[in-house]
Amino acid sequence: MLKNTIEHDIKFSEVDSLRVVWHGHYVRYFEDGREAFGKQYGLGYMDIFEHGQLAVPLVDLQVNFKRVLEYGDSVRIETTLIDTPAAKLIFEYQVISVKHGFVACTGRSTQVFMAPITKELYITVPPFIESWKKKWGLSS
Amino acid sequence: MLKNTIEHDIKFSEVDSLRVVWHGHYVRYFEDGREAFGKQYGLGYMDIFEHGQLAVPLVDLQVNFKRVLEYGDSVRIETTLIDTPAAKLIFEYQVISVKHGFVACTGRSTQVFMAPITKELYITVPPFIESWKKKWGLSS
Amino acid sequence: MLKNTIEHDIKFSEVDSLRVVWHGHYVRYFEDGREAFGKQYGLGYMDIFEHGQLAVPLVDLQVNFKRVLEYGDSVRIETTLIDTPAAKLIFEYQVISVKHGFVACTGRSTQVFMAPITKELYITVPPFIESWKKKWGLSS
Amino acid sequence: MLKNTIEHDIKFSEVDSLRVVWHGHYVRYFEDGREAFGKQYGLGYMDIFEHGQLAVPLVDLQVNFKRVLEYGDSVRIETTLIDTPAAKLIFEYQVISVKHGFVACTGRSTQVFMAPITKELYITVPPFIESWKKKWGLSS
Repeated sequence: MLKNTIEHDIKFSEVDSLRVVWHGHYVRYFEDGREAFGKQYGLGYMDIFEHGQLAVPLVDLQVNFKRVLEYGDSVRIETTLIDTPAAKLIFEYQVISVKHGFVACTGRSTQVFMAPITKELYITVPPFIESWKKKWGLSS
Repeated sequence: MLKNTIEHDIKFSEVDSLRVVWHGHYVRYFEDGREAFGKQYGLGYMDIFEHGQLAVPLVDLQVNFKRVLEYGDSVRIETTLIDTPAAKLIFEYQVISVKHGFVACTGRSTQVFMAPITKELYITVPPFIESWKKKWGLSS
Repeated sequence: MLKNTIEHDIKFSEVDSLRVVWHGHYVRYFEDGREAFGKQYGLGYMDIFEHGQLAVPLVDLQVNFKRVLEYGDSVRIETTLIDTPAAKLIFEYQVISVKHGFVACTGRSTQVFMAPITKELYITVPPFIESWKKKWGLSS
Repeated sequence: MLKNTIEHDIKFSEVDSLRVVWHGHYVRYFEDGREAFGKQYGLGYMDIFEHGQLAVPLVDLQVNFKRVLEYGDSVRIETTLIDTPAAKLIFEYQVISVKHGFVACTGRSTQVFMAPITKELYITVPPFIESWKKKWGLSS
């Protein structure tokens, strides 16, 4: 299981008038996690775009809100790649309160592979991703 | 079926480096739709809070991205209340390109009813919502 | 004096934990005003870029916060072009509470003209802007 | 001179369709710097509010954009308190490209001291701030 973990201090601008993190910011936390994952494992937007000639648009996003997060706290964002033979990138997320240890939010995103010029979708795993998976011992 | 429709011009600040609306902004479009729905039908955050002594935290959010939206376009955001006997508020969303007519994104959100002081969740529909539903001819 | 006026409902996501519009959103209100000005007078980012082969980067921004704005209010954003013979675009902004009539915030922005490929700045007013000014009766 | 320095990775969601950091995000970078300064020196929003019974609204903000920042870069945000005998908090900011070493943006903000209930402004430095300044060897 490939997993990345980052920490983030909750910012004043992220807290809404109920004094908790506004729900829309979790979507950004997930993307921050995905970017950090990409940096750690060589699967960043730029890696995929430049070496793979691929775009990886998001097609599906699910967010489950479990507990609220308050100003003064930090979060640990855990991003895990879900191994699949399908022509997709699936990530699962956990956003955890550093101060209290509870899971505030979980989520899952699905991305597909697209040729950036023709906009055609890949129905099988593209070669760049195939090699990348092999390198990290994932199913092909 | 209770439904609200608003229009919104896509802003420069909403478009990412791929020149399409950044995916996180759809979550805000949904909230904009929910707020406009609340204004139209007397179910705004403030109505619920002041008259119902209720908070309505989001517990679940699903987003399906179907087509990209570009700068220069506008969107029509359609927000529909899904009638349910459960102690929940369920909304479905459609974000439609005004220029091209296609559906760019759909989504669904679920909110629960909470007593703001004790933080206790309602397991049956609270009285304020019960009356509101009756007024609009919804199932109780 | 060329001037544009738009209205905007304050959104839940724009209000911070002190229950007033978070200061950073005024910068976006100014840009929304600038975009609406561009649309009204044919001076949008795309007009300038496509017909004028110009980028117009912001070099200076000043914001004066006078009164706070609360959720439930709307704002009127007034954007005025300040006429100048210099190779600059200068706008002044007023953000006004619709509910109370007071000025919540004023501001001023300065943009310069840049050739997008060479990144060279224009030290005199570029031809596309020259014609645009003539059309609207501004000083050249 | 009291100064705080933090680093921040530029996020995909911060980059606009010209592939540079959208100008409005610098205002957030400044606030991030101010929050980190507050944490380091015991002058956070919460410290001021709880121990000083004070709110510190922003009244003036100036931003000078010097160079653009691109995705893949990080920034160093330097926040310096400008010592003044006036009943104000004045900060200056520098946002520096970590990759290239240049200054991308500078700025200055002014905050005043307000009694949160009566909304009255202090015309002299309030006691909590007076003691804080003495502790750090600043002019009173």
